[in-house]
Amino acid sequence: MLTNNADKIYNSVGVEAVLTERSDLRQYLTGVATSFGYVISDKLGTVFYTDARYLERAQAALNGSGINVKIFKGSLEEILKNYKEIAVPLSSVTFREYKKLTDMGLKVADSDSAFISAMSVKQNYEKENIKKACEIAIKAFNKVLPIIKEGMTENEVAAELEYLMRKLGAEGTSFETIVAFGANSSIPHHETGQTKLKFGDIVLIDFGCKFGGYCSDCTRTFLYGDDRKHEEFKKVYGEVLNAHMIAKENFRDGITGKQADAFARDYLQGKKLAEYFTHSLGHGIGINIHEFPRVSPKSDDILKNGMVFSDEPGVYFEGKFGIRIEDTILLENGIAQSLTDSDKNLIIL
Amino acid sequence: MLTNNADKIYNSVGVEAVLTERSDLRQYLTGVATSFGYVISDKLGTVFYTDARYLERAQAALNGSGINVKIFKGSLEEILKNYKEIAVPLSSVTFREYKKLTDMGLKVADSDSAFISAMSVKQNYEKENIKKACEIAIKAFNKVLPIIKEGMTENEVAAELEYLMRKLGAEGTSFETIVAFGANSSIPHHETGQTKLKFGDIVLIDFGCKFGGYCSDCTRTFLYGDDRKHEEFKKVYGEVLNAHMIAKENFRDGITGKQADAFARDYLQGKKLAEYFTHSLGHGIGINIHEFPRVSPKSDDILKNGMVFSDEPGVYFEGKFGIRIEDTILLENGIAQSLTDSDKNLIIL
Repeated sequence: MLTNNADKIYNSVGVEAVLTERSDLRQYLTGVATSFGYVISDKLGTVFYTDARYLERAQAALNGSGINVKIFKGSLEEILKNYKEIAVPLSSVTFREYKKLTDMGLKVADSDSAFISAMSVKQNYEKENIKKACEIAIKAFNKVLPIIKEGMTENEVAAELEYLMRKLGAEGTSFETIVAFGANSSIPHHETGQTKLKFGDIVLIDFGCKFGGYCSDCTRTFLYGDDRKHEEFKKVYGEVLNAHMIAKENFRDGITGKQADAFARDYLQGKKLAEYFTHSLGHGIGINIHEFPRVSPKSDDILKNGMVFSDEPGVYFEGKFGIRIEDTILLENGIAQSLTDSDKNLIIL
Repeated sequence: MLTNNADKIYNSVGVEAVLTERSDLRQYLTGVATSFGYVISDKLGTVFYTDARYLERAQAALNGSGINVKIFKGSLEEILKNYKEIAVPLSSVTFREYKKLTDMGLKVADSDSAFISAMSVKQNYEKENIKKACEIAIKAFNKVLPIIKEGMTENEVAAELEYLMRKLGAEGTSFETIVAFGANSSIPHHETGQTKLKFGDIVLIDFGCKFGGYCSDCTRTFLYGDDRKHEEFKKVYGEVLNAHMIAKENFRDGITGKQADAFARDYLQGKKLAEYFTHSLGHGIGINIHEFPRVSPKSDDILKNGMVFSDEPGVYFEGKFGIRIEDTILLENGIAQSLTDSDKNLIIL
């Protein structure tokens, strides 16, 4: 499995050697999350150079994979001295790193598209990890609902939810949990804070966790008590949910991110809500919380079977309220299935 | 306060305009954590270009600071068209970003050292945030100790600790919490997992949280029950604690990272333990969990009053046990004070 990833990238790039330093790509190749290391693949195989902090863990994870683990001795020049051409992920290589390679006399090729193609279409073990991360997130959400009480702060609700995800086996959150009460929900990326929950508040929670190094991503918006002042909110909630469902039902293998985004955006346009839908419909999910494909009005990325991405229409009325309904979606056999599925009819606690 | 940061960097760089896109540097300049944006400073002032998701929050945070917030319209060329020279943090600018700037006909200067100088010496509001992040971490650690019971998994202990930090007001963890039981402690960056706690186990916990956007970092090693089989561990624990304390007592304004690291390393050398001390003594702490200064055997970085960094000697006996004792340290008036201070005599639960 792991050898295949390094082999797959090496064969796909088709250059004498492939050098990988970026942490997410390194994790894809080695199966371990590390903060330092170089992976180098050539026709003879793959070596993972890291430091003493990770040696034991990397050796255990890569035992039998065919990838050798060695301690990095502090000289990239030494590792690369026998090559004439090297592929690196050009979109994230710094100017200095690039210059260092060319100063060594190396011809520099680009491994970006090989990684994007390989990492965006998930293999079975990757799907299993994402499914588990999604399952934990939804279980934790269902368990946190009865705990939510008037007077709790946004921060406390985030604490309870994160605790439950951890207890259910998550390695941590996949991003900073957003909990927004009342008008705070109108800020798409609200910073969870000390606002206290009041009867009749709208609650927006955007959350996810990591399992096996892979992310989940989910957003729910609901009411804490019905003060009968939320007719407009309820109406708009129904429209955002329709946009979410229509998009999900229409995602297909072979369409562009732009076409996928339009399913939700055109529907909201028809309801005069598109101007309040101020972000993209979705983004790919995997080792990274944001990766290929982009599901946005400008994206030519092609959705394919095996891809995992979010379906998250949202509308925001500044200073009043916001609504976002998000699932992590797996496209398989031409059909989109929600991995964070739960009843999305408006919850009133 | 915030205007001063943008002004300070602009004046220190001394170039026509300063462009900042990296998220940690952007946070330093704007006071808000955002996943997208450009900050541009010139002689007329500073503008923060971001997108609709962050507009409301950024405007609230920068109200009265003199920094204008605008929606990014999708063209960096448009923003930069009137400049001849632009400073960017060269160490992290990608090859493509650099090329884009030079293709626009811009002369490119480096803002790295200005940011490093400014961000490494903490201002009062930064010290307050770090102190609070440290205070929360230690309070949570003291509260988690009585909760730890035989049979709990590493993951469950991490869940309890993270929950307590969150409840005490943390915004989240500053890195993935490490909880290692028994021989797992010999892996410096052990991946917290499903290992269950047994009577007589060594427990190593490396943890930290964020407050006001700033990090804390702390490690404790202790025994869960004394099975009378830990004479060697207890002896070595005392030596690592001595190394930790000797370093702390000797940190001074004006010494190099190398000299600072040597206080602990030389002591452990005298006890024939230096070969097991396989990492650096410490690293700077701020908005980032790892930043300037490096406190390592190769570091020429100069420690200065106002800097915050870790003091974390550790020794690791592969497959047997590991010990690390870490505090977040503030150097002030030439004296190192621990911000995560607590009784460090060996705890036996």
